[in-house]
Amino acid sequence: MNVVFGFLRRPKVRIDIPRLKPRVDTSTLPKVNLAELTPEVLPYLGQVAYVQLAIFEEVSDAIAASPTVAAKQLLAPAAGQALDKHERFVAEIRRRVDAPSEVIDPFTAGIDRYRALVRGSDWFEQLASIYLTAGILDDFFTLLAAGLPGDTGPRCIAILDADTGRRAIVDILSDAIAADAVLGSRLAMWGRRVVGDTLLVARSAIHLTGNPESDEQRIEPVFTEMIAAHTRRMDRLGLTA
Amino acid sequence: MNVVFGFLRRPKVRIDIPRLKPRVDTSTLPKVNLAELTPEVLPYLGQVAYVQLAIFEEVSDAIAASPTVAAKQLLAPAAGQALDKHERFVAEIRRRVDAPSEVIDPFTAGIDRYRALVRGSDWFEQLASIYLTAGILDDFFTLLAAGLPGDTGPRCIAILDADTGRRAIVDILSDAIAADAVLGSRLAMWGRRVVGDTLLVARSAIHLTGNPESDEQRIEPVFTEMIAAHTRRMDRLGLTA
Repeated sequence: MNVVFGFLRRPKVRIDIPRLKPRVDTSTLPKVNLAELTPEVLPYLGQVAYVQLAIFEEVSDAIAASPTVAAKQLLAPAAGQALDKHERFVAEIRRRVDAPSEVIDPFTAGIDRYRALVRGSDWFEQLASIYLTAGILDDFFTLLAAGLPGDTGPRCIAILDADTGRRAIVDILSDAIAADAVLGSRLAMWGRRVVGDTLLVARSAIHLTGNPESDEQRIEPVFTEMIAAHTRRMDRLGLTA
Repeated sequence: MNVVFGFLRRPKVRIDIPRLKPRVDTSTLPKVNLAELTPEVLPYLGQVAYVQLAIFEEVSDAIAASPTVAAKQLLAPAAGQALDKHERFVAEIRRRVDAPSEVIDPFTAGIDRYRALVRGSDWFEQLASIYLTAGILDDFFTLLAAGLPGDTGPRCIAILDADTGRRAIVDILSDAIAADAVLGSRLAMWGRRVVGDTLLVARSAIHLTGNPESDEQRIEPVFTEMIAAHTRRMDRLGLTA
């Protein structure tokens, strides 16, 4: 569990070095890959399809809870993109079996429990959770896709790599955080909180070989890089990870 | 108010005559039109844009509340289509002004109050409300569009006329109603309940001339036909209107 929670013990004092904020693209993803730990195709597709549906539902909920119509409109593309990705993954499942829901169903309870844990208690926490957790999960499923057979991996990566529409969340939150130090402090704590649960749910999607030592050796560098990518997302929000 | 609530006093005894169930198309719309009562372009667009956003939010909420993944997938297109229509109406507003939310804002409180009234107390009532009330409102804004200047009317009608994705709601509800007479009886009452509030919110969008008598003469046949279209939707669900 050190891999997952070790970052919580990092010294809180940080020197802020100005850095270019890169466009969110694949260059920000870990250089390692999880190919050895990729599950079978259908469990992979079932999980990633439901994760995208969950992102859609959480964004939709945040749209409904938005204080202004302007905010609803900023968030609408993120809902549309997640729904589109869900439907494209369902189409991938349907190429293989007739009833996509049977492939997805085994994973809904675990993911729903996780969603309840990271939903947050107000609109700002909800938005921060969506941006941070969906970012980690998109990275994770992109890495796992490297181990899928044939052209399935590249097709799944192309779906995940399409625009997320979540840049609007950065705009909304970074403005609010810049204007309110107390909010920034609260969301920084919240951002540190959700990453642990998210890495645990990611870990549950990994196909372990049964050799704990070699599994850990494979997982550790990947999770370390995923946490680094998370830290960059925290930076973009104006938060100390 | 007789126009709005008169249908509640229709005799409940009905002879069921088998009829062809037409595809939902413009031939089922009232033959009358509301051109004389159409508001200015921007208030029209602000209202219809927010109504579509509200439909999106209500469908999204029903997706989140769905008991199965299969049901979520059946409902997803209805959310996607409503969001797309919202965005197309916002694009129409943006052709005219820079800040669409300022055009929409004046109408959100009234429409939100209405939404709370017709939301229903469980998933089935929620689905019935979406199908029935969105159907009435789509008809209504299609009729109003006849009075918009230039090519704005045809463009708005084309947006509203695109697939709603709500056929899945008919499938879900008619199966459930066929299997459970108590549910059918409850939803029939609920369907009669929501139409009154929906016609009231539609009425609030009409530009009245200030001459109550001539206004009523224009409104009455339109609302009578809208109620007839509502009755056909109730039929499709297997409910007595």
